[in-house]
Amino acid sequence: MSFDSERVLVTGGASFIGSHLVEDLVERGARVRVADDFSSGTIENLAAVKDEIEVLDGNLKRRSFAEEATQDIDRVFHLAADHGGRGYISNYPANCATNMALDNIVFETAVENGVEKITFASSACTYPTDIQQEQRPLREDMVSFDERGGAYADEAYGWAKLMGERSLQAFHEQYGVDASAVRIFTAYGPRENETHAIVALIAKAYAEQDPYQIWGDGEQTRNFTYVSDIVSALVLANERISDATPVNAGIPDYISINEVAEAIFDYLDWEPDEINRMTDKPVGVRHRAADTTRAEELLGWEPEHSLKDGMAETIDWYVENRDKGYVQENLETLLHER
Amino acid sequence: MSFDSERVLVTGGASFIGSHLVEDLVERGARVRVADDFSSGTIENLAAVKDEIEVLDGNLKRRSFAEEATQDIDRVFHLAADHGGRGYISNYPANCATNMALDNIVFETAVENGVEKITFASSACTYPTDIQQEQRPLREDMVSFDERGGAYADEAYGWAKLMGERSLQAFHEQYGVDASAVRIFTAYGPRENETHAIVALIAKAYAEQDPYQIWGDGEQTRNFTYVSDIVSALVLANERISDATPVNAGIPDYISINEVAEAIFDYLDWEPDEINRMTDKPVGVRHRAADTTRAEELLGWEPEHSLKDGMAETIDWYVENRDKGYVQENLETLLHER
Ligand SMILES: NC(=O)c1ccc[n+]([C@@H]2O[C@H](COP(=O)([O-])OP(=O)(O)OC[C@H]3O[C@@H](n4cnc5c(N)ncnc54)[C@H](O)[C@@H]3O)[C@@H](O)[C@H]2O)c1
Ligand SMILES: NC(=O)c1ccc[n+]([C@@H]2O[C@H](COP(=O)([O-])OP(=O)(O)OC[C@H]3O[C@@H](n4cnc5c(N)ncnc54)[C@H](O)[C@@H]3O)[C@@H](O)[C@H]2O)c1
Repeated sequence: MSFDSERVLVTGGASFIGSHLVEDLVERGARVRVADDFSSGTIENLAAVKDEIEVLDGNLKRRSFAEEATQDIDRVFHLAADHGGRGYISNYPANCATNMALDNIVFETAVENGVEKITFASSACTYPTDIQQEQRPLREDMVSFDERGGAYADEAYGWAKLMGERSLQAFHEQYGVDASAVRIFTAYGPRENETHAIVALIAKAYAEQDPYQIWGDGEQTRNFTYVSDIVSALVLANERISDATPVNAGIPDYISINEVAEAIFDYLDWEPDEINRMTDKPVGVRHRAADTTRAEELLGWEPEHSLKDGMAETIDWYVENRDKGYVQENLETLLHER
Repeated sequence: MSFDSERVLVTGGASFIGSHLVEDLVERGARVRVADDFSSGTIENLAAVKDEIEVLDGNLKRRSFAEEATQDIDRVFHLAADHGGRGYISNYPANCATNMALDNIVFETAVENGVEKITFASSACTYPTDIQQEQRPLREDMVSFDERGGAYADEAYGWAKLMGERSLQAFHEQYGVDASAVRIFTAYGPRENETHAIVALIAKAYAEQDPYQIWGDGEQTRNFTYVSDIVSALVLANERISDATPVNAGIPDYISINEVAEAIFDYLDWEPDEINRMTDKPVGVRHRAADTTRAEELLGWEPEHSLKDGMAETIDWYVENRDKGYVQENLETLLHER
């Protein structure tokens, strides 16, 4: 798929996932603009491509800035969001709610400026939470606005993502703009920060935390999905879906936190004497993995990275880029910043 | 209840309901500021009080304008909304969706500016639609974010109002701001425009439309609630509710469109030869009326106006303020504008 000389805006392009997407788009020949307020994203994330892209620094909840960002753009990947790990989501519900402002302002200004395609970074947090107590793959049609019970999202953050999808549908309906929504499951990879599960576990092991802390009993599962697989789902959805149909981007496997911790200990060749499982910490739903049928059918998408490969790349990146002494001294701060 | 020298912002204060609220607040001694973009509101609506209030003209989806509007304000009544009759709601879902931007930007800037109390004009459209096929009074706890099935709102407009409530809860939780949400049912009264049911019916009768057109079979019901009763619920909620608990403002009676039409014919002493019931028009849910228990308990609120009194005041206002020839010539436009 070529994006040759397509003018592409990536909102939140300085983020973990955003920066990988930007690199991919640049490689495909796109002329990329990033609009980000650097509240959690960083310019370092864009180091590899910074001379090939345009970067606008501003708050997309400001309509004037969103108008500027969406000008002379063919396609928008909308990733900007007030977002963080589970602790952040639980403690800052109002911040998460304002994503409803962010999304609608980006969509509205994009349509006004004649953007042709919008792809929205939605989330597994749009899925009903009650069915995530057992291991039941989440299928896109388990979310619905037209059936009673079809909307039951995960905290203010999840409701906002769900409504981002609903709004985008409305924009597609009213204006005919091509639209797609990708429900991103738990992503991991280089450049992710320490408030997200896998990198937090890596940081604690790297810092040789002992007793080693695990939030919850560690038997909660996620379908940890490598970032480049997420990126390819976003690009494919932008290319192939136009009617706002949502699609999952996540592997179908249930991986427990305890398994991930063991894999990290193995790779780093270190083990704590004691593990402290902190059952008073917020951990979210019990089990979460994606049904990938629709992604295969509509996008021809399949995840290409095994957990083993992805973990190796992520740990290598972490160890190369973080000073051990620094991580040891600042572990608490790193884990609790956004 | 006195609002003596309280600094009060009414967003959407130039609207039908907003202008009645502004008059009431001025009478109670408040220093009132109106912020409105006059997209559907008019300055004429504020004629009676215009020398006693401050009026700011601007789009509250623009953060810079919202920052200005919420400065030096103690209490906010947030009524601004992209809104219209059923036809508008069905045809402009994206416009309605952007109310999620409007609401969150108003809440966020209000909290930043130290506003103490926020009252949100929510809607009966937040209620699950499937239970409105029969005559079952709508109780506040039939809407819930914490129970599967508790969120099932009426089109993009209803979802946006529902999320306005959810967002306001999040702001209350995170910042402790006093908050209340009033679920307004079908309001009517002087200054309402012709896209809403009762005034549309009055306009058609005044213009002596024959065959007289009724949308749907006319047996659909609403609990038409007089505007000053809505206003008193808003003021009481602002005063007495601080934890974002939503409360209904609507009478408990089911009144059919056919009944209303008959009452109008009686009052105007005119009758069409033929009635054309247009069953292809969008009419929304079948039956809608409020359970008033919570409003009584929390606010000591009871509706004071009978349909008969309210209709008389509304028809008198209409006839006094609209030229018959003008209405006859422009009936279609009046009914289909927002
Ligand atoms: N990481 C995951 O596992 C995951 C899962 C589901 C969905 N997502 C979604 O994917 C996207 C990227 O997430 P991420 O985890 O890579 O990092 P992130 O959540 O930190 O990315 C958000 C980006 O948006 C920027 N931003 C925030 N508010 C902004 C505003 N008002 N104006 C302009 N920019 C703003 C931030 O600086 C950051 O670069 C987000 O939309 C997120 O909700 C991520
Ligand atoms: N009329 C009803 O029966 C009813 C029922 C339920 C809820 N409500 C709610 O009550 C409120 C008042 O409704 P109404 O029927 O009196 O009239 P309305 O819906 O026309 O009022 C909305 C007001 O907001 C203004 N406005 C719209 N977008 C704006 C923006 N971006 N920035 C600034 N101002 C903007 C309009 O000019 C108008 O004055 C609305 O929030 C509406 O959703 C009304």
